Amino acid sequence: MVRFLDFDATAAGKRLVATKAPSLGSLLDSRRVASCQLPMGGGLAFNYAATAVDGSLLSLFAEFAAEQELVAKFSLLAKGEVMNPGEKRMVLHHLARGELAGKIVREGRDFRAFYEGERQKTAQFARRVRSGELRGSSGKPFATAVQVGIGGSDLGPRALYLALERGERRAGRATLAARFISNVDPDDADSVIASLDLASSLFILVSKSGTTQETLANETLVRARLAAAGLDPARHFVAVTSETSPLAKSADFLASFFMDDNIGGRYSSTSAVGGLVLSLAFGPETFAALLEGAHEEDLLALNADITKNPALLDAMIGVWERNALGMGSTAILPYSEALSRFPAHLQQLDMESNGKRVNREGRALSYATGPVIFGEPGTNGQHSFFQLLHQGMDPIPLQFIGFRENQLSADVRSEGSTSRGKLNANLAAQIMAFALGKADENGARHFPGERPSTLIHGDRLDARALGALLAHFENKVAFQGFAWNLNSFDQEGVQLGKLLAKKVLAMDSAATLAAATLTAATDGPAVKADAALAAYAQLLGTGTGR
Amino acid sequence: MVRFLDFDATAAGKRLVATKAPSLGSLLDSRRVASCQLPMGGGLAFNYAATAVDGSLLSLFAEFAAEQELVAKFSLLAKGEVMNPGEKRMVLHHLARGELAGKIVREGRDFRAFYEGERQKTAQFARRVRSGELRGSSGKPFATAVQVGIGGSDLGPRALYLALERGERRAGRATLAARFISNVDPDDADSVIASLDLASSLFILVSKSGTTQETLANETLVRARLAAAGLDPARHFVAVTSETSPLAKSADFLASFFMDDNIGGRYSSTSAVGGLVLSLAFGPETFAALLEGAHEEDLLALNADITKNPALLDAMIGVWERNALGMGSTAILPYSEALSRFPAHLQQLDMESNGKRVNREGRALSYATGPVIFGEPGTNGQHSFFQLLHQGMDPIPLQFIGFRENQLSADVRSEGSTSRGKLNANLAAQIMAFALGKADENGARHFPGERPSTLIHGDRLDARALGALLAHFENKVAFQGFAWNLNSFDQEGVQLGKLLAKKVLAMDSAATLAAATLTAATDGPAVKADAALAAYAQLLGTGTGR
Repeated sequence: MVRFLDFDATAAGKRLVATKAPSLGSLLDSRRVASCQLPMGGGLAFNYAATAVDGSLLSLFAEFAAEQELVAKFSLLAKGEVMNPGEKRMVLHHLARGELAGKIVREGRDFRAFYEGERQKTAQFARRVRSGELRGSSGKPFATAVQVGIGGSDLGPRALYLALERGERRAGRATLAARFISNVDPDDADSVIASLDLASSLFILVSKSGTTQETLANETLVRARLAAAGLDPARHFVAVTSETSPLAKSADFLASFFMDDNIGGRYSSTSAVGGLVLSLAFGPETFAALLEGAHEEDLLALNADITKNPALLDAMIGVWERNALGMGSTAILPYSEALSRFPAHLQQLDMESNGKRVNREGRALSYATGPVIFGEPGTNGQHSFFQLLHQGMDPIPLQFIGFRENQLSADVRSEGSTSRGKLNANLAAQIMAFALGKADENGARHFPGERPSTLIHGDRLDARALGALLAHFENKVAFQGFAWNLNSFDQEGVQLGKLLAKKVLAMDSAATLAAATLTAATDGPAVKADAALAAYAQLLGTGTGR
Repeated sequence: MVRFLDFDATAAGKRLVATKAPSLGSLLDSRRVASCQLPMGGGLAFNYAATAVDGSLLSLFAEFAAEQELVAKFSLLAKGEVMNPGEKRMVLHHLARGELAGKIVREGRDFRAFYEGERQKTAQFARRVRSGELRGSSGKPFATAVQVGIGGSDLGPRALYLALERGERRAGRATLAARFISNVDPDDADSVIASLDLASSLFILVSKSGTTQETLANETLVRARLAAAGLDPARHFVAVTSETSPLAKSADFLASFFMDDNIGGRYSSTSAVGGLVLSLAFGPETFAALLEGAHEEDLLALNADITKNPALLDAMIGVWERNALGMGSTAILPYSEALSRFPAHLQQLDMESNGKRVNREGRALSYATGPVIFGEPGTNGQHSFFQLLHQGMDPIPLQFIGFRENQLSADVRSEGSTSRGKLNANLAAQIMAFALGKADENGARHFPGERPSTLIHGDRLDARALGALLAHFENKVAFQGFAWNLNSFDQEGVQLGKLLAKKVLAMDSAATLAAATLTAATDGPAVKADAALAAYAQLLGTGTGR
């Protein structure tokens, strides 16, 4: 029987918190670069040479992982236990890529068969669109797929599309372009629409519940523009939703594809939410390769040996840096322009999963949980926020990602090296500069060093590697959630804002404000809060009828 | 005589650090929303109702500002004192928008006349391009301006271009499109180039020193592609650089425009670095309006009264949150898709300016300095990292930005409100949700509240408002740098990585690694470091000849 203990209730956790860093500068040598490395899925490797993790720390990680039963908990997830207790749901995104622990059948439904069936439906649909068999209402073949969704229906699929677009174009598979509309700000949708040939555009409406305010508002806007262009909106729209949603099987859609509540939004890129748009753009084979890479990586997460489980090791390094060293944020630094929006996806994945203040039973915690996640591609970041990373007051752990080959270019040489050579020389250089620093009598030129980083690297960023990269971070986040004994799979923190926004839209703010007459000193907190909300609404020109 | 004291050497600073927050929940009411507001330039306003700043804290801010002579120091900057002591330079970006304190003349050069002269040169050049008088080597008019630059030559201009593009298009002024190439990863340049009609593309090479490795590598790549397309590269390239750079007045450029060392990269958007591309895209009048808004805002920064100086007040709120409340990061949350890359610009502006560990004399500091800056547009962020902002362990101060009007759309109504109405209802709702929270017996649904935010708002995001917004944050960062007694205008932290990258490129990593034979235990730290660097270089397939 697996036990759920708070992080600070474990013996190893208490020791971990009290374990300070050995000197990274004295530790790091070429032997470490060669040996501190674990194979990942998709041909990638996880290198932790430039962290202060030595043999004794690694043992302590293993001890903690055993005591907190991290891999056993991951297995529960793989087996379909209710691992999202707040919402009483299973957590099955891994099942969209393959089975980790046999069949999961509930009330007659085989979930692997369900997800795989939907994948085959998207594949078949994508083939019909890509071949030109299925066309828009004016008879034009579809040339662009436009994803209309927000949060997990946007960030992951968008990051994956951008990550693969160049390589797939080079390989001649980028048959459709993809675009994305997410923000309820109508300047988002209008700007995307202005750049489209509507007659050859296929819109993918993505909302699991079918009730997402932003997404439905954008649907209205897009349908109005389609109709104004003399096109039949129903023949330019498909839906990705749950079977129980109002969008399911409506005549307003050319087709509908399904997911369910056991796959959370931020974990849904490998379901139809990401699968349809990627299959339309690059073909179902590319999406299948992505799933294959993710599944390879998922299998590694079941390994009880931390030296063979890169997501578990990455998670433990992060927990130690957060809880023992007090580091409050983590930077994601892909040396790959194709991964320009991957940090934004990880920002959601990590911060929405582990940005929690209560444990899985709802009791308030008293230790640090998920960090702030931010990042931009290198070398761009070097010319931006790296100053603070090198010489700011608080060390920030870094997660570098790099590849040995280009996606697109034949490249050019300048000053004796290729652009790829320069890119990766900078990456190698940064790792060392952060780790070792540099003494200098001039304080402004002194680099304290001792700033840890990890490196995920591979030959090339293709669909298989990308799938493994995605799954690595999903599994890392899950292990950290288990370590901190919180529920990584709900997001109650988004509810209050939604509620209050509805209140504003129902409120005639001018009238409410006048009625509250700037609130009397004797008014209760609820009246006072409503009046303040109305004042903000008025300031922003919103409320009833706006 | 102005004195430069460390933050913790001031009496008011010591009191500030010891001043904890009054309860935001009990403070915030509609009266505060109406009264806690300062006019900014460009028709904007700065509202701090949802911070815990009460009368006594405001007095303490004013006391600190007086003791640390923050406005006097800003005046020194405005007068052309050497306020970048490390590099022995003046700090004159404000002078690109207008004079704040009379003429600045050094060695016969009137700097305002110099910057204004260059602005007029860019305006004239832009008019010739926009009218079709000046054309590419094949005789085609230019339709796209492509900025080739990195860091400050990229982030600011890109953010400003995206911020204005929709509104300028609607106004019929978006005559040229702009694109940006920054990363040394050749997949960046190649991808942009693939989307261009080279015959109608004008490339703007931006490098103050004329030696930026990434930018020169991309220049080589672009020139090769132009030549391969049968075009004359010299007639498709202009330079923005300093007069002393190797790029100045070269026959390889159609024209050259100048800036100088008194304007740092991250502060250069209002010089020719941003001015040329914006003038080409939208016309010189739009750029002039942006400068006008920035100048209005700069003038406010000279006001000694903190209740009339929004940048100073914003800076002090941030200092208090950082040093007294221990908040380690700040989120920038524009409820405007047009500002999608503005947080990335502020990330550089703030983190590169104030991510420092020594004071302006180079002595190590023992108090917190610049925070981590991150952000994405709302409402997108609500469906992503807002979970952690609402319910994470550590409160993070938030800077909201909102507008009452759209840039583009006639908008649509759904469920009784427009998209704009929904956007701003969400913004008002979030401010209140963060400030007040919500009690709930279910821990997962409990919102602790007491999470402070500020709001910058205006009618519309046009060039003048954008200029004011830009200058506001520049001036806020300067005030914080003065508060912490550090040099906000150098960036020594970027040097070590550059040095080591050159070392890698000069190193045959395989040979170096073999020679180091995995480093003997007796080897000195320098040999060990070189061997580790070589090992990383080998891992990433870089080094001599790559």
